[in-house]
Amino acid sequence: MSTTVRTQVAIVGAGPAGLILSHLLEQSGISSVVIDQRTRTDIESTIRAGILEQGTADLLTEIDPNTRVHSVGQRHDGIELRIHGEPHRIDFPSLVGRSVWLYPQHEALKDLLALRIGAGQDLRFGVTALRVEDADTLRPRVIAQDADGASFEIDADFVVGADGSRSVVRPVVAGASSEGYFREYPFAWFGILCDAPPSADELIYSNSADGFALISQRSAEVQRMYFQCDPATDPNALSEAQIWQALQARVPGTTLVEGPIFQRDVLRFRSFVARELRRGRAALVGDAAHTVPPTGAKGMNLAVADVVILARALDALLTDGDERLIDDYAELASRRIWKAQHFSWWMTSMLHTAPDATDFDRRRQAGELRSVVESEAGRTFIAEAYTGWPFVAA
Amino acid sequence: MSTTVRTQVAIVGAGPAGLILSHLLEQSGISSVVIDQRTRTDIESTIRAGILEQGTADLLTEIDPNTRVHSVGQRHDGIELRIHGEPHRIDFPSLVGRSVWLYPQHEALKDLLALRIGAGQDLRFGVTALRVEDADTLRPRVIAQDADGASFEIDADFVVGADGSRSVVRPVVAGASSEGYFREYPFAWFGILCDAPPSADELIYSNSADGFALISQRSAEVQRMYFQCDPATDPNALSEAQIWQALQARVPGTTLVEGPIFQRDVLRFRSFVARELRRGRAALVGDAAHTVPPTGAKGMNLAVADVVILARALDALLTDGDERLIDDYAELASRRIWKAQHFSWWMTSMLHTAPDATDFDRRRQAGELRSVVESEAGRTFIAEAYTGWPFVAA
Repeated sequence: MSTTVRTQVAIVGAGPAGLILSHLLEQSGISSVVIDQRTRTDIESTIRAGILEQGTADLLTEIDPNTRVHSVGQRHDGIELRIHGEPHRIDFPSLVGRSVWLYPQHEALKDLLALRIGAGQDLRFGVTALRVEDADTLRPRVIAQDADGASFEIDADFVVGADGSRSVVRPVVAGASSEGYFREYPFAWFGILCDAPPSADELIYSNSADGFALISQRSAEVQRMYFQCDPATDPNALSEAQIWQALQARVPGTTLVEGPIFQRDVLRFRSFVARELRRGRAALVGDAAHTVPPTGAKGMNLAVADVVILARALDALLTDGDERLIDDYAELASRRIWKAQHFSWWMTSMLHTAPDATDFDRRRQAGELRSVVESEAGRTFIAEAYTGWPFVAA
Repeated sequence: MSTTVRTQVAIVGAGPAGLILSHLLEQSGISSVVIDQRTRTDIESTIRAGILEQGTADLLTEIDPNTRVHSVGQRHDGIELRIHGEPHRIDFPSLVGRSVWLYPQHEALKDLLALRIGAGQDLRFGVTALRVEDADTLRPRVIAQDADGASFEIDADFVVGADGSRSVVRPVVAGASSEGYFREYPFAWFGILCDAPPSADELIYSNSADGFALISQRSAEVQRMYFQCDPATDPNALSEAQIWQALQARVPGTTLVEGPIFQRDVLRFRSFVARELRRGRAALVGDAAHTVPPTGAKGMNLAVADVVILARALDALLTDGDERLIDDYAELASRRIWKAQHFSWWMTSMLHTAPDATDFDRRRQAGELRSVVESEAGRTFIAEAYTGWPFVAA
């Protein structure tokens, strides 16, 4: 016999999207229940993306007086594009008057979880959403199971899938996941975390004869670095010396500060957008709706942008009974999603060496990189996208 | 028994590159002989590209008091990118303070031929260059045959291949043509010339569900239009009604003014750059050195840019005995060539529908087009390239 929990919005997924949405809904006087199959410890310790657009950092600052984005996080006023050893800085403030923040997602999640729990949010960990029912009615339901195996239902006015790339909500909104817009890439990132001081003050996106590398940071003591690899690479097949050799070769002009590697992983590259982002009383946000390759750091930021649009639409729907904004949700969110998909694809294509690239392709790519960095308009175009287009719209 | 003609620079090809080069050399007091296998009538009547960058128009104005670029030619202050029926103008003067000129190449050639013949240039039509010899010595020679089948040699200090994509000079500089950087495209342009008034004041580059079209102009009475087609298309297989139907469908939002079609052709798309642009006392310019797909109108402009660099280098070499500029020719010319190759590839990819494009690719492309036109930096980046980067450099 299953229990029923009644709320206005059932949110599946306690990542940045789900948590920020629950906050924005509360500000509009709308109740929600957030469930996540992971434990709080899991959520707070999984290393994910680390770059916040100006708008994302502003939103976190606005909604959370205790955010550590400006203390633990660091403002970055630029990135470097390194082209076969030549450094070319994209200076964000002078080009677009904005910046980005290096603030790892799990740190942002610690802030957000503390914020929501402190506010009395009904937030349930270790709860697995099994399926969504009645999305075409005014009373959609999430059928779920708690950590003890007890099943229960969330009886809501609206269901939001903020449950990542293996979303349980997606099938009811968009059909089988295989039906989405999709692209795979013939390379992946070999990523490491290591105990070492930073090798650079800002991110270096390096296009070299040996392939791509990204020199990123986490803190004064921990660094995150990546290099382009075959997607089939076994992360444990390389020695630390081989990893450092691969990294060093791909960042000519910089001697990386090496240190013990305590985590290694291979990140597959995929582009994905669900065919539908909303159906009846259910909608998708964040990775449930779309995946971008990591070059360009759009993943979490795009999730937050979805949520800003959806929160406003749900307010209009549930507070005023006005369906116009929710009817526009997919269209409005899609505009940014496809610009971000393009940007992520573009940064990926422009900086990586495709295994089947011809000599023409490589020379053209070098011409492209030079065209962009030699032009203030080109640098501005990158800076606009990287620091983030303004949130919403209409 | 063959005659020998002595000159400082033997120029193979009386297209814009060869003719402008002969003028610039004369200004430096350097003699040249220009040969071309075509007749003057052929040269003056072959329809080719029609858009001059600001720098090309300025150069023609500077070197030729009788140029008709400002009378017969028309200044265009912008182009339109039409995205699924939505018009987006790229306004050149407000973005970059420059413009382009619509001035068909054969009209520019009439001016240049008159200019050079008036100046007493040794200019020989109907002469076929057979081969270049001794390019590695200080006395390279062009072995040629005149219209009557009589062979003769041009004994020079330097040989320039300005003889187009089937260059006879290229093998001696760059090896077999198959060794170049090369890319083919899975589409072509079906081009027409018709008797009709203009359908638009400026060029319209239209990306539509049915594929790409370019609405261009020639004069008040003659128009040039193109639509994307299969490279295997037989230009004579379509009726006029079918051609107009194909064009009209690809430019939603505009009703094209139809008129009798008096020329039709299928233009294959290729990107090509020779592996070497100079060897010893021989160098390549224009189509002999590189080919671009026509989207973006870079072909003739790139030839002129090569010539500006080469003329200066030949002056230093032949007047002062200074080899440094000729040693830098390939490197300096290549910088612009690869930016232009990228721009031409980019405009092509962004505006055409690849036959194997997935739904993801089409949506990404729409996101790309929107990213560019919605951003002043994006529009500026296009305008800079389209109106032309400044000539030379160092």
